[in-house]
Amino acid sequence: MTTDAIRTFVDGARGTLLADLDAWLRIPGISAQPDRHEDVRRSAEWFADAARRTGFPTVEVWDDGPWLPAVYAEWRSDDPGAPTVLVYGHHDVQPVDPLELWHTDPFDPTIDGDVVRARGASDDKGQLLFHLLGLQAHLAATGRSTPAVTLKYLIEGEEESGSPHFEELLAAHRDRIDCDVVVVTDTGMIAADVPSTVTGMRGMVVGTVTFHGPDLDLHSGVFGGAVPNPATANGRLDGALHDEHGRVQIPGFYDDVLDLTDEDRDLFSRVPSDDTEFLKVAQSRALAGEDGYTTLERIGARPTAEVNGIGGGYQGAGNKTIVPSDAFVKLSFRLVANQDPARIAKGVEEFVSAHTPDGIVSSIEWEGAGVRPCLVPLGTPAYRALTAAISAAFDGAEVLPTREGGSGPEAELQQAVGVPLVFLGVGLPDDQIHAPNEKVNLSMLYRGAEATAHLWARFAETGRDALRSSERSEV
Amino acid sequence: MTTDAIRTFVDGARGTLLADLDAWLRIPGISAQPDRHEDVRRSAEWFADAARRTGFPTVEVWDDGPWLPAVYAEWRSDDPGAPTVLVYGHHDVQPVDPLELWHTDPFDPTIDGDVVRARGASDDKGQLLFHLLGLQAHLAATGRSTPAVTLKYLIEGEEESGSPHFEELLAAHRDRIDCDVVVVTDTGMIAADVPSTVTGMRGMVVGTVTFHGPDLDLHSGVFGGAVPNPATANGRLDGALHDEHGRVQIPGFYDDVLDLTDEDRDLFSRVPSDDTEFLKVAQSRALAGEDGYTTLERIGARPTAEVNGIGGGYQGAGNKTIVPSDAFVKLSFRLVANQDPARIAKGVEEFVSAHTPDGIVSSIEWEGAGVRPCLVPLGTPAYRALTAAISAAFDGAEVLPTREGGSGPEAELQQAVGVPLVFLGVGLPDDQIHAPNEKVNLSMLYRGAEATAHLWARFAETGRDALRSSERSEV
Repeated sequence: MTTDAIRTFVDGARGTLLADLDAWLRIPGISAQPDRHEDVRRSAEWFADAARRTGFPTVEVWDDGPWLPAVYAEWRSDDPGAPTVLVYGHHDVQPVDPLELWHTDPFDPTIDGDVVRARGASDDKGQLLFHLLGLQAHLAATGRSTPAVTLKYLIEGEEESGSPHFEELLAAHRDRIDCDVVVVTDTGMIAADVPSTVTGMRGMVVGTVTFHGPDLDLHSGVFGGAVPNPATANGRLDGALHDEHGRVQIPGFYDDVLDLTDEDRDLFSRVPSDDTEFLKVAQSRALAGEDGYTTLERIGARPTAEVNGIGGGYQGAGNKTIVPSDAFVKLSFRLVANQDPARIAKGVEEFVSAHTPDGIVSSIEWEGAGVRPCLVPLGTPAYRALTAAISAAFDGAEVLPTREGGSGPEAELQQAVGVPLVFLGVGLPDDQIHAPNEKVNLSMLYRGAEATAHLWARFAETGRDALRSSERSEV
Repeated sequence: MTTDAIRTFVDGARGTLLADLDAWLRIPGISAQPDRHEDVRRSAEWFADAARRTGFPTVEVWDDGPWLPAVYAEWRSDDPGAPTVLVYGHHDVQPVDPLELWHTDPFDPTIDGDVVRARGASDDKGQLLFHLLGLQAHLAATGRSTPAVTLKYLIEGEEESGSPHFEELLAAHRDRIDCDVVVVTDTGMIAADVPSTVTGMRGMVVGTVTFHGPDLDLHSGVFGGAVPNPATANGRLDGALHDEHGRVQIPGFYDDVLDLTDEDRDLFSRVPSDDTEFLKVAQSRALAGEDGYTTLERIGARPTAEVNGIGGGYQGAGNKTIVPSDAFVKLSFRLVANQDPARIAKGVEEFVSAHTPDGIVSSIEWEGAGVRPCLVPLGTPAYRALTAAISAAFDGAEVLPTREGGSGPEAELQQAVGVPLVFLGVGLPDDQIHAPNEKVNLSMLYRGAEATAHLWARFAETGRDALRSSERSEV
């Protein structure tokens, strides 16, 4: 009955969802690019307005610190003792280059059947819009004028830049974000017909290593072979990151890694996974990675070192025979429980130092303090409420636990509020987030909205004390 | 007497030389950049006009093949049996990036005392202009209406792109370039007060290696650690080019290298050289290179592998956590006698292939067929005439033999015409050719003009048969 009412409401609101998507996705709020920061602000204002339209009595744009504008929205339940839920997401988007690989303008959304294509469609604007829709469905289906739980939205504007100021933002607004449970919405599911919830996210440290050689580009005939070449030094560093077994060579890199238990590996093996399909989605010609682990384990449960970009010297047409003055590499390290970003960064610094030859000056610029890895315990009351809500939206299907390889500021958030955290996200593996031609499936957004509507009711039933518990409980 | 007349003429023509420099240096004839090819043509036309103004009865712009326009100018001596001299130089220039490191516009020449600063000032436009001036001085000082030798200028338009079509150009015009000796003007001297002549140039092969991984940039969280990364592959290649002794690791790289004799090393040791000064000019913090050789030997007599540029993935502000789809490295290999560019290229191809992991597609695009190394035998009649002419321009100073590390199409030219070749060039080590803020010293151009004027008389005295001889002769 409630399930039907929720679905009916969601079905009836499809046009509004599409119109909202179209409007918001036109705002190019790329947090990594300073010349887009005004657009990041516009993006925040747009979502703040949308929250007000949805009925949130309190909506604020937080730009009272070094962070890019974040949106905070609060709607208190009028039920005494109702639990408080903090929803986390982000409104900023990834850069769009290489632009030439996009089939359509990344900021002019196109609709093709079930698919909406634009930068941010899946990561994370579409998913935040299913939240607004799901809340409306919750109110309509229950006939309530306030939600069954007190809702707090915290929608960040710097996630795609590694959330460099998130800890500061949380500290500055610590008095506002008290809650009993956190719902993170910035992840995906295994497939459209295989509902799942993320139970682990990798942490990350990201930085740019710069090698400076001669103070000017030198003629490689006149000087070549007699002075150190910073691009060669860069290559020697990049080439030394992994051994022949795919193991990362940073000192102490694996010291704190929580090894997979037999139960963990069993859960991984239950997740439907097809390396052929994975390669097809990745458009890669081969698998690679750390010896001894499956693809899902490599992505979900093992740390990595990845070269995100390299540059230096002459990159134009033809050639220019120089010893370049500078070279750089952009590196990211994905971390798993219980690696510490600060400790890994220190190891990287040692490694870079050890790979800097005489006459070359190296430096590292880190993007913020890094992101901690996050691991959700299975079977807690909050986890059971979540999987029940998702299952209801997927017609009773079993909800599988997965681990994602991506990174978000979940661990920071959890540390700040000290309560359990769960993931509700409906992205799909082929959404091409962070890549050209990002898309989202509207049918997944509808399922997400339904799950949200169910979840607020389930959380209210579960109650504050149980939600706060991290004990494994039987159904 | 003649020496005085030559110097007087050159001194009197300084204004004309400056005006010519200013006009020609404004033409941005960058052969490596297709959008500058019209400027390469304008540059050729400018020099052709200048040669006509100087009195050359035959001046042609050769653009009858895939090469960029070259200038051919011919002035026959009316002395029966006069030797024929082919002068080689080039009118195209290097690219100018990084433009932000130039203190002035590279194509708006500035004069500061003895220094003219602009792209091409030293390499090679300034040096070709001293030839025109020197020829006029020769005629004025000897009272001749035609030169004492038959002069043929062959001024290429693709040297800064590795002369990719030079062999074809020589083959197409083989009937025009017969000569008894070749004078190459595209090199430098040890110092303003230490005249010298180049006796060796390195050869070169240049190419771009591309690594292609996944067909699109991938989210490094969703895919990182499970697919091969082309930028990492690139790093592993670049890092493997040298061992810890600075030895190039390309298979067979050193097989054909003519090792230095004791006499060679003795000549190297006589060239004034100061590593501290070298580092200052290079603006480098340390020396590097192959163990067991001095700086001059490393540059003049040892082959190298140099990374000229790298690129791939995200290079913008902030960071983008991707597994990039593509990465590339621009490589140049400087070769010494008797290395063969084709054989080295084959070794590089094997090496790249061996460093291409599963799932990555690599390819190499070579810039032309490469350049052969060139080694001038000392003590031939042509060599002695050259050093005598240079000495006269430098008030009787001894002229030292050197070897340069740069590359030009000398060996191709020598192979085509089958006669001895000598180098007359007056660049200085701090001319910053191929780098921002290229300059030339006017005083060196005057010395070059004087040496030219003496040289045509010396060559005429030496006679055709002796000039063609490659036998070492005593004074």
